[in-house]
Amino acid sequence: MEFRIEEGIEVLVSTPAVLGALLRGRSAGWLKARKTAEAFSAMDVLGHLIHAELTDWMPRVRMILEHGDARAFEPFDRFGFRESIESKSAEELLDLFARLRGESLRALGERGVREADLALKGRHPELGPVTLGNLLATWVVHDLGHIAQIAKTMAGEYREAVGPWRVYTTILE
Amino acid sequence: MEFRIEEGIEVLVSTPAVLGALLRGRSAGWLKARKTAEAFSAMDVLGHLIHAELTDWMPRVRMILEHGDARAFEPFDRFGFRESIESKSAEELLDLFARLRGESLRALGERGVREADLALKGRHPELGPVTLGNLLATWVVHDLGHIAQIAKTMAGEYREAVGPWRVYTTILE
Repeated sequence: MEFRIEEGIEVLVSTPAVLGALLRGRSAGWLKARKTAEAFSAMDVLGHLIHAELTDWMPRVRMILEHGDARAFEPFDRFGFRESIESKSAEELLDLFARLRGESLRALGERGVREADLALKGRHPELGPVTLGNLLATWVVHDLGHIAQIAKTMAGEYREAVGPWRVYTTILE
Repeated sequence: MEFRIEEGIEVLVSTPAVLGALLRGRSAGWLKARKTAEAFSAMDVLGHLIHAELTDWMPRVRMILEHGDARAFEPFDRFGFRESIESKSAEELLDLFARLRGESLRALGERGVREADLALKGRHPELGPVTLGNLLATWVVHDLGHIAQIAKTMAGEYREAVGPWRVYTTILE
């Protein structure tokens, strides 16, 4: 699919509800599971998404709209969330993410971005020239990637429990 | 994690809401996207999950509780859903899946399955000896695997649209 603003926003709007359905009321075992010592748990993903909402997506949209490619984006710290999740419950993180995502999408709407603006140019500190369309498509892909990551991480917890079905459950590989 | 009935049911209960949040009201482009000509679209996944609800999970639980490993399960047809989804909308499939999942979990509850029953033996037509615990864990993993599959398939639609970010969006590989 080509990136179209309305279709991309369909996904961005729905992500808080997807994560809420996956994670609200889940036992600690599900929330804290991680594939390896360095991999993200579901709690880490929530912290990471909150951090991206605050420091990545809309700040970069604004940078493109206001400065084009004259200024590079601030680098994004994938692990910048560590402190902020420490004393929080999954429910608190889900509520915060839902509020921030709502604010981001309202702000995007207020900017009146249209299909013709998707070719506007920005500058990534490492990747170099990008467009507003690239940025918005990446926002969508980033959400979907982390939804898939949480589902895979949870599934991985039953790697042994499935017994002989392991050969059919390709998600565990 | 070891398989525990309550933790497994947490996931099984939530799957209709996760799929609803991901797919309700989505444009046709998202619903019909598939990675390859043979791969499942989101609509196919819904049909497949409905078919599994009708012919796989609870029928196999009942087989174990009533016949142990004396009788093999009926083979499950992964593609047995094709006809049943043809004229249906995503919303109709989501509603049907939610209703069937509710009925499955009510039936499981009525059987009063406990942790001690997880070692009960059954017989898979191809895999051979399995336990009730293996079957229930596989049900959970199967749900999560298909959630991840839908998210990855949707993300894949923006493979080109992300432009230079392709190198960071590992979900697209």
